[in-house]
Amino acid sequence: MSKLEFWYDLASNYAYLSAMRIEDLAADADVEVEWRPFLLGPIFASQGWDTSPFNVYPAKGRYMQRDMARLCEARALPPFALPDPFPQNSLRAARIALVGCRQGWVAAYSKAVFCRQFQARPQGANPACDISNLDVLAGLLRSIDLAPEPIIELSQSDDIKQALRRQSAAAQEAGIFGAPSFVTETGELFWGDDRLENALQFAQAN
Amino acid sequence: MSKLEFWYDLASNYAYLSAMRIEDLAADADVEVEWRPFLLGPIFASQGWDTSPFNVYPAKGRYMQRDMARLCEARALPPFALPDPFPQNSLRAARIALVGCRQGWVAAYSKAVFCRQFQARPQGANPACDISNLDVLAGLLRSIDLAPEPIIELSQSDDIKQALRRQSAAAQEAGIFGAPSFVTETGELFWGDDRLENALQFAQAN
Repeated sequence: MSKLEFWYDLASNYAYLSAMRIEDLAADADVEVEWRPFLLGPIFASQGWDTSPFNVYPAKGRYMQRDMARLCEARALPPFALPDPFPQNSLRAARIALVGCRQGWVAAYSKAVFCRQFQARPQGANPACDISNLDVLAGLLRSIDLAPEPIIELSQSDDIKQALRRQSAAAQEAGIFGAPSFVTETGELFWGDDRLENALQFAQAN
Repeated sequence: MSKLEFWYDLASNYAYLSAMRIEDLAADADVEVEWRPFLLGPIFASQGWDTSPFNVYPAKGRYMQRDMARLCEARALPPFALPDPFPQNSLRAARIALVGCRQGWVAAYSKAVFCRQFQARPQGANPACDISNLDVLAGLLRSIDLAPEPIIELSQSDDIKQALRRQSAAAQEAGIFGAPSFVTETGELFWGDDRLENALQFAQAN
Protein backbone atom coordinates (compact mmCIF):
# COMPACT_ATOMS: atom_id res chain seq x y z
CA MET A 1 0.00 0.00 0.00
CA SER A 2 1.42 3.39 -1.03
CA LYS A 3 2.02 6.03 1.59
CA LEU A 4 1.58 9.79 1.54
CA GLU A 5 2.92 12.16 4.18
CA PHE A 6 0.53 14.97 5.15
CA TRP A 7 2.57 17.88 6.55
CA TYR A 8 0.65 20.61 8.33
CA ASP A 9 0.81 23.37 10.90
CA LEU A 10 -2.18 23.26 13.25
CA ALA A 11 -2.68 27.03 12.74
CA SER A 12 -2.99 26.74 8.93
CA ASN A 13 -6.47 27.35 7.53
CA TYR A 14 -5.76 25.61 4.22
CA ALA A 15 -4.43 22.59 6.14
CA TYR A 16 -7.83 22.53 7.88
CA LEU A 17 -9.45 21.98 4.48
CA SER A 18 -7.17 19.02 3.75
CA ALA A 19 -7.57 17.49 7.20
CA MET A 20 -11.32 17.36 6.70
CA ARG A 21 -11.11 15.33 3.49
CA ILE A 22 -7.78 13.50 3.29
CA GLU A 23 -8.99 10.35 5.04
CA ASP A 24 -11.88 9.71 2.64
CA LEU A 25 -9.86 10.59 -0.45
CA ALA A 26 -6.92 8.43 0.64
CA ALA A 27 -9.19 5.47 1.34
CA ASP A 28 -10.67 5.79 -2.16
CA ALA A 29 -7.14 5.90 -3.62
CA ASP A 30 -5.93 3.02 -1.45
CA VAL A 31 -3.16 5.20 -0.02
CA GLU A 32 -2.04 5.25 3.63
CA VAL A 33 -1.69 8.74 5.15
CA GLU A 34 0.98 9.66 7.66
CA TRP A 35 -0.02 12.81 9.58
CA ARG A 36 3.09 14.93 10.18
CA PRO A 37 2.40 18.05 12.28
CA PHE A 38 5.20 20.62 12.29
CA LEU A 39 5.75 24.32 12.90
CA LEU A 40 5.75 26.73 9.98
CA GLY A 41 7.01 29.61 12.14
CA PRO A 42 10.73 28.79 11.80
CA ILE A 43 10.35 28.40 8.01
CA PHE A 44 8.47 31.70 7.71
CA ALA A 45 11.15 33.34 9.91
CA SER A 46 13.86 32.08 7.54
CA GLN A 47 11.93 33.85 4.74
CA GLY A 48 11.96 37.09 6.74
CA TRP A 49 8.34 36.89 7.96
CA ASP A 50 7.35 37.20 11.61
CA THR A 51 3.72 36.24 10.95
CA SER A 52 1.54 34.56 8.33
CA PRO A 53 1.94 35.78 4.72
CA PHE A 54 -1.79 36.54 4.95
CA ASN A 55 -0.91 39.25 7.48
CA VAL A 56 2.31 40.32 5.72
CA TYR A 57 0.40 40.86 2.45
CA PRO A 58 -3.06 42.33 3.27
CA ALA A 59 -4.52 41.91 -0.24
CA LYS A 60 -3.62 38.22 -0.07
CA GLY A 61 -5.16 37.98 3.40
CA ARG A 62 -8.44 39.56 2.30
CA TYR A 63 -8.58 37.22 -0.69
CA MET A 64 -7.84 34.19 1.48
CA GLN A 65 -10.87 34.87 3.67
CA ARG A 66 -13.18 35.05 0.67
CA ASP A 67 -11.57 31.98 -0.91
CA MET A 68 -12.01 29.99 2.32
CA ALA A 69 -15.64 31.11 2.67
CA ARG A 70 -16.39 29.90 -0.87
CA LEU A 71 -14.54 26.60 -0.43
CA CYS A 72 -16.20 25.81 2.91
CA GLU A 73 -19.60 26.48 1.37
CA ALA A 74 -18.84 24.32 -1.68
CA ARG A 75 -17.70 21.46 0.57
CA ALA A 76 -20.64 21.70 2.94
CA LEU A 77 -18.39 22.65 5.85
CA PRO A 78 -19.70 25.07 8.50
CA PRO A 79 -19.24 28.78 7.68
CA PHE A 80 -15.59 29.79 7.80
CA ALA A 81 -14.35 32.08 10.54
CA LEU A 82 -10.88 33.35 11.22
CA PRO A 83 -9.73 32.98 14.84
CA ASP A 84 -8.58 36.06 16.71
CA PRO A 85 -5.63 36.40 16.76
CA PHE A 86 -4.69 34.84 13.43
CA PRO A 87 -2.55 32.87 13.13
CA GLN A 88 -2.83 31.16 16.48
CA ASN A 89 0.32 30.08 18.30
CA SER A 90 0.38 26.35 17.55
CA LEU A 91 3.46 25.30 19.58
CA ARG A 92 1.66 23.52 22.42
CA ALA A 93 -0.98 22.08 20.12
CA ALA A 94 1.79 20.65 17.90
CA ARG A 95 3.58 19.03 20.84
CA ILE A 96 0.36 17.32 21.84
CA ALA A 97 -0.13 16.24 18.22
CA LEU A 98 3.24 14.49 18.31
CA VAL A 99 2.05 12.50 21.34
CA GLY A 100 -0.96 11.65 19.23
CA CYS A 101 1.28 10.39 16.41
CA ARG A 102 2.79 7.90 18.87
CA GLN A 103 -0.51 6.92 20.47
CA GLY A 104 -2.67 6.72 17.36
CA TRP A 105 -5.14 9.60 17.76
CA VAL A 106 -3.37 12.40 15.86
CA ALA A 107 -6.00 12.60 13.09
CA ALA A 108 -9.02 12.96 15.38
CA TYR A 109 -7.18 15.46 17.57
CA SER A 110 -5.92 17.57 14.67
CA LYS A 111 -9.39 17.80 13.17
CA ALA A 112 -10.75 18.93 16.56
CA VAL A 113 -8.07 21.66 16.79
CA PHE A 114 -8.81 22.82 13.23
CA CYS A 115 -12.60 22.85 13.66
CA ARG A 116 -12.31 24.83 16.89
CA GLN A 117 -10.29 27.50 15.08
CA PHE A 118 -11.97 27.82 11.72
CA GLN A 119 -15.66 27.06 12.13
CA ALA A 120 -17.98 29.92 13.04
CA ARG A 121 -19.84 29.50 16.33
CA PRO A 122 -23.65 29.12 16.03
CA GLN A 123 -23.97 32.80 17.00
CA GLY A 124 -22.03 33.62 13.85
CA ALA A 125 -19.22 35.33 15.73
CA ASN A 126 -15.60 34.55 15.08
CA PRO A 127 -14.44 31.74 17.34
CA ALA A 128 -12.83 33.37 20.34
CA CYS A 129 -10.14 30.81 20.59
CA ASP A 130 -6.68 30.29 21.98
CA ILE A 131 -5.05 27.00 21.05
CA SER A 132 -1.97 28.00 23.04
CA ASN A 133 -4.13 27.72 26.18
CA LEU A 134 -3.73 24.30 27.81
CA ASP A 135 -7.29 24.39 29.18
CA VAL A 136 -8.61 24.78 25.62
CA LEU A 137 -6.41 21.91 24.43
CA ALA A 138 -7.49 19.74 27.38
CA GLY A 139 -11.10 20.38 26.38
CA LEU A 140 -10.37 19.31 22.82
CA LEU A 141 -8.70 16.10 24.03
CA ARG A 142 -11.74 15.37 26.21
CA SER A 143 -14.00 15.97 23.21
CA ILE A 144 -12.36 12.98 21.50
CA ASP A 145 -12.62 10.85 24.67
CA LEU A 146 -9.03 11.16 25.88
CA ALA A 147 -7.91 11.95 29.44
CA PRO A 148 -5.91 15.15 28.97
CA GLU A 149 -3.63 15.23 32.02
CA PRO A 150 -1.09 12.47 31.16
CA ILE A 151 -1.04 13.55 27.51
CA ILE A 152 -0.32 17.20 28.33
CA GLU A 153 2.38 16.16 30.78
CA LEU A 154 4.06 13.97 28.17
CA SER A 155 3.76 16.77 25.57
CA GLN A 156 5.94 18.97 27.79
CA SER A 157 8.77 16.40 28.01
CA ASP A 158 12.16 17.09 26.47
CA ASP A 159 11.66 14.04 24.29
CA ILE A 160 8.56 15.53 22.63
CA LYS A 161 10.01 19.04 22.45
CA GLN A 162 13.04 17.72 20.59
CA ALA A 163 10.89 15.53 18.37
CA LEU A 164 8.95 18.63 17.25
CA ARG A 165 12.17 20.49 16.51
CA ARG A 166 13.37 17.53 14.41
CA GLN A 167 10.03 17.30 12.62
CA SER A 168 10.10 21.02 11.72
CA ALA A 169 13.72 20.75 10.53
CA ALA A 170 12.79 17.70 8.43
CA ALA A 171 10.00 19.72 6.81
CA GLN A 172 12.43 22.41 5.73
CA GLU A 173 14.88 19.77 4.45
CA ALA A 174 12.10 18.23 2.36
CA GLY A 175 11.69 21.59 0.61
CA ILE A 176 8.46 22.47 2.41
CA PHE A 177 7.70 26.20 2.53
CA GLY A 178 3.97 26.23 3.36
CA ALA A 179 1.08 24.12 4.58
CA PRO A 180 -0.50 21.85 3.80
CA SER A 181 2.18 19.94 1.90
CA PHE A 182 2.21 16.34 0.77
CA VAL A 183 5.28 14.17 0.19
CA THR A 184 5.25 10.80 -1.54
CA GLU A 185 7.57 7.88 -0.77
CA THR A 186 9.68 8.92 -3.77
CA GLY A 187 10.14 12.41 -2.28
CA GLU A 188 7.72 14.16 -4.64
CA LEU A 189 6.43 17.36 -3.04
CA PHE A 190 2.95 18.82 -3.55
CA TRP A 191 1.90 22.11 -1.94
CA GLY A 192 -1.56 23.24 -1.03
CA ASP A 193 -5.00 21.73 -0.51
CA ASP A 194 -5.50 22.21 -4.27
CA ARG A 195 -2.87 19.52 -4.92
CA LEU A 196 -4.23 16.84 -2.59
CA GLU A 197 -5.86 14.86 -5.38
CA ASN A 198 -2.70 15.08 -7.53
CA ALA A 199 -0.54 13.94 -4.62
CA LEU A 200 -2.74 10.92 -3.98
CA GLN A 201 -2.72 9.98 -7.67
CA PHE A 202 1.05 10.29 -7.77
CA ALA A 203 1.45 8.21 -4.60
CA GLN A 204 -0.84 5.52 -6.00
CA ALA A 205 0.99 5.32 -9.35
CA ASN A 206 4.60 5.38 -8.13
CA MET B 1 -23.97 35.85 -21.72
CA SER B 2 -21.90 36.12 -18.55
CA LYS B 3 -18.47 37.69 -18.69
CA LEU B 4 -15.22 36.84 -16.91
CA GLU B 5 -12.16 39.07 -16.85
CA PHE B 6 -8.85 37.21 -17.25
CA TRP B 7 -6.07 39.31 -15.68
CA TYR B 8 -2.50 38.30 -16.46
CA ASP B 9 1.07 39.45 -16.73
CA LEU B 10 2.72 38.13 -19.91
CA ALA B 11 5.74 36.99 -17.84
CA SER B 12 3.66 34.79 -15.51
CA ASN B 13 4.12 31.05 -15.96
CA TYR B 14 0.86 30.13 -14.22
CA ALA B 15 -0.97 32.62 -16.44
CA TYR B 16 0.47 30.66 -19.39
CA LEU B 17 -1.40 27.58 -18.12
CA SER B 18 -4.68 29.48 -18.01
CA ALA B 19 -4.17 31.13 -21.40
CA MET B 20 -3.84 27.70 -23.00
CA ARG B 21 -7.20 26.45 -21.74
CA ILE B 22 -9.47 29.38 -20.88
CA GLU B 23 -11.04 29.65 -24.34
CA ASP B 24 -12.23 26.04 -24.45
CA LEU B 25 -13.41 26.03 -20.84
CA ALA B 26 -15.24 29.35 -21.24
CA ALA B 27 -16.96 28.13 -24.41
CA ASP B 28 -18.16 25.04 -22.55
CA ALA B 29 -19.46 27.24 -19.71
CA ASP B 30 -21.05 29.74 -22.13
CA VAL B 31 -18.99 32.56 -20.61
CA GLU B 32 -17.35 35.39 -22.55
CA VAL B 33 -13.71 36.06 -21.62
CA GLU B 34 -12.18 39.53 -21.54
CA TRP B 35 -8.37 39.30 -21.73
CA ARG B 36 -6.85 41.98 -19.48
CA PRO B 37 -3.04 42.11 -19.66
CA PHE B 38 -1.39 44.19 -16.94
CA LEU B 39 1.95 44.54 -15.17
CA LEU B 40 2.52 42.72 -11.88
CA GLY B 41 5.81 44.56 -11.23
CA PRO B 42 4.25 47.63 -9.57
CA ILE B 43 2.09 45.39 -7.35
CA PHE B 44 5.09 43.26 -6.36
CA ALA B 45 7.06 46.45 -5.69
CA SER B 46 4.30 47.67 -3.35
CA GLN B 47 4.77 44.37 -1.44
CA GLY B 48 8.50 45.05 -1.13
CA TRP B 49 9.62 42.67 -3.90
CA ASP B 50 11.89 43.70 -6.75
CA THR B 51 11.44 40.40 -8.62
CA SER B 52 9.12 37.38 -8.77
CA PRO B 53 8.28 35.70 -5.45
CA PHE B 54 9.74 32.56 -7.06
CA ASN B 55 13.12 34.31 -6.94
CA VAL B 56 12.55 35.99 -3.57
CA TYR B 57 11.75 32.60 -1.98
CA PRO B 58 14.03 29.92 -3.51
CA ALA B 59 12.20 26.90 -2.02
CA LYS B 60 9.01 28.20 -3.60
CA GLY B 61 10.82 28.72 -6.89
CA ARG B 62 12.20 25.19 -6.96
CA TYR B 63 8.77 23.80 -6.19
CA MET B 64 7.14 25.92 -8.88
CA GLN B 65 9.39 24.43 -11.57
CA ARG B 66 8.47 20.88 -10.55
CA ASP B 67 4.78 21.79 -10.25
CA MET B 68 4.81 23.34 -13.73
CA ALA B 69 6.57 20.31 -15.21
CA ARG B 70 3.95 17.98 -13.77
CA LEU B 71 1.02 20.17 -14.85
CA CYS B 72 2.33 20.59 -18.40
CA GLU B 73 2.76 16.84 -18.71
CA ALA B 74 -0.71 16.14 -17.32
CA ARG B 75 -2.23 18.63 -19.80
CA ALA B 76 -0.29 17.34 -22.79
CA LEU B 77 1.54 20.65 -23.20
CA PRO B 78 5.15 20.62 -24.43
CA PRO B 79 7.79 20.13 -21.70
CA PHE B 80 8.03 23.18 -19.43
CA ALA B 81 11.11 25.36 -19.50
CA LEU B 82 11.89 28.50 -17.59
CA PRO B 83 13.15 31.41 -19.71
CA ASP B 84 16.47 32.97 -18.84
CA PRO B 85 16.23 35.45 -17.23
CA PHE B 86 13.08 34.72 -15.26
CA PRO B 87 10.86 36.61 -15.01
CA GLN B 88 11.15 38.31 -18.35
CA ASN B 89 10.53 42.06 -18.61
CA SER B 90 7.02 42.16 -20.00
CA LEU B 91 6.54 45.93 -20.42
CA ARG B 92 6.82 46.11 -24.20
CA ALA B 93 4.94 42.85 -24.67
CA ALA B 94 2.10 44.21 -22.52
CA ARG B 95 1.86 47.45 -24.49
CA ILE B 96 1.51 45.44 -27.68
CA ALA B 97 -1.12 43.28 -25.98
CA LEU B 98 -3.18 46.40 -25.28
CA VAL B 99 -3.11 47.19 -29.00
CA GLY B 100 -4.35 43.63 -29.47
CA CYS B 101 -7.24 44.24 -27.07
CA ARG B 102 -8.39 47.07 -29.33
CA GLN B 103 -7.78 45.24 -32.60
CA GLY B 104 -9.11 41.82 -31.60
CA TRP B 105 -6.03 39.61 -31.62
CA VAL B 106 -4.94 39.76 -27.97
CA ALA B 107 -5.66 36.09 -27.24
CA ALA B 108 -3.64 34.68 -30.16
CA TYR B 109 -0.78 37.08 -29.46
CA SER B 110 -0.69 36.39 -25.72
CA LYS B 111 -0.59 32.65 -26.30
CA ALA B 112 2.31 33.12 -28.72
CA VAL B 113 4.24 35.16 -26.13
CA PHE B 114 3.59 32.57 -23.44
CA CYS B 115 4.53 29.58 -25.60
CA ARG B 116 7.76 31.25 -26.66
CA GLN B 117 8.76 31.71 -23.02
CA PHE B 118 7.64 28.52 -21.35
CA GLN B 119 7.90 25.70 -23.88
CA ALA B 120 11.22 23.86 -24.17
CA ARG B 121 12.87 24.05 -27.58
CA PRO B 122 13.11 20.75 -29.49
CA GLN B 123 16.75 20.50 -28.36
CA GLY B 124 15.45 20.41 -24.80
CA ALA B 125 17.33 23.55 -23.85
CA ASN B 126 15.68 26.40 -22.01
CA PRO B 127 14.24 28.88 -24.46
CA ALA B 128 16.80 31.60 -24.88
CA CYS B 129 14.26 34.30 -25.03
CA ASP B 130 13.87 38.02 -24.53
CA ILE B 131 10.32 39.31 -24.79
CA SER B 132 11.58 42.83 -24.11
CA ASN B 133 13.31 42.66 -27.51
CA LEU B 134 11.17 44.26 -30.23
CA ASP B 135 12.60 41.94 -32.90
CA VAL B 136 11.40 38.95 -30.90
CA LEU B 137 7.97 40.52 -30.46
CA ALA B 138 7.81 41.39 -34.17
CA GLY B 139 8.50 37.74 -34.95
CA LEU B 140 5.69 36.64 -32.67
CA LEU B 141 3.29 39.07 -34.36
CA ARG B 142 4.33 37.71 -37.76
CA SER B 143 3.74 34.17 -36.50
CA ILE B 144 0.06 35.03 -36.05
CA ASP B 145 -0.10 36.70 -39.48
CA LEU B 146 0.09 40.33 -38.37
CA ALA B 147 2.30 43.03 -39.88
CA PRO B 148 4.40 44.09 -36.88
CA GLU B 149 5.57 47.60 -37.81
CA PRO B 150 2.35 49.62 -37.37
CA ILE B 151 1.43 47.66 -34.26
CA ILE B 152 4.77 48.25 -32.58
CA GLU B 153 4.61 51.93 -33.47
CA LEU B 154 1.15 52.25 -31.97
CA SER B 155 2.27 50.32 -28.87
CA GLN B 156 4.82 53.05 -28.16
CA SER B 157 2.25 55.86 -28.25
CA ASP B 158 1.41 57.84 -25.13
CA ASP B 159 -2.16 56.66 -25.46
CA ILE B 160 -1.16 53.00 -25.07
CA LYS B 161 1.46 53.70 -22.40
CA GLN B 162 -1.17 55.46 -20.31
CA ALA B 163 -3.72 52.75 -20.97
CA LEU B 164 -1.31 50.16 -19.56
CA ARG B 165 -0.70 52.28 -16.45
CA ARG B 166 -4.46 52.57 -15.97
CA GLN B 167 -4.92 48.84 -16.48
CA SER B 168 -2.27 47.98 -13.88
CA ALA B 169 -3.74 50.46 -11.40
CA ALA B 170 -7.19 48.96 -12.00
CA ALA B 171 -5.77 45.51 -11.22
CA GLN B 172 -4.51 46.68 -7.87
CA GLU B 173 -7.82 48.42 -7.12
CA ALA B 174 -9.65 45.15 -7.86
CA GLY B 175 -7.61 43.49 -5.09
CA ILE B 176 -5.36 41.59 -7.50
CA PHE B 177 -1.99 40.55 -6.03
CA GLY B 178 -0.86 37.82 -8.44
CA ALA B 179 -1.49 36.28 -11.83
CA PRO B 180 -3.53 34.80 -13.26
CA SER B 181 -6.58 36.32 -11.60
CA PHE B 182 -10.19 36.18 -12.67
CA VAL B 183 -12.89 38.74 -11.85
CA THR B 184 -16.60 38.22 -12.43
CA GLU B 185 -19.12 40.92 -13.32
CA THR B 186 -20.14 41.02 -9.66
CA GLY B 187 -16.53 41.77 -8.64
CA GLU B 188 -15.78 38.29 -7.30
CA LEU B 189 -12.01 37.65 -7.40
CA PHE B 190 -10.38 34.28 -8.03
CA TRP B 191 -6.60 33.84 -7.94
CA GLY B 192 -4.56 31.22 -9.70
CA ASP B 193 -4.94 28.78 -12.57
CA ASP B 194 -6.32 26.34 -9.97
CA ARG B 195 -9.40 28.54 -9.59
CA LEU B 196 -10.25 28.95 -13.29
CA GLU B 197 -13.01 26.35 -13.19
CA ASN B 198 -14.48 27.88 -10.02
CA ALA B 199 -14.38 31.35 -11.54
CA LEU B 200 -16.22 30.17 -14.67
CA GLN B 201 -18.85 28.38 -12.58
CA PHE B 202 -19.35 31.50 -10.49
CA ALA B 203 -19.58 33.72 -13.56
CA GLN B 204 -22.14 31.38 -15.12
CA ALA B 205 -24.32 31.21 -12.00
CA ASN B 206 -24.34 34.91 -11.01
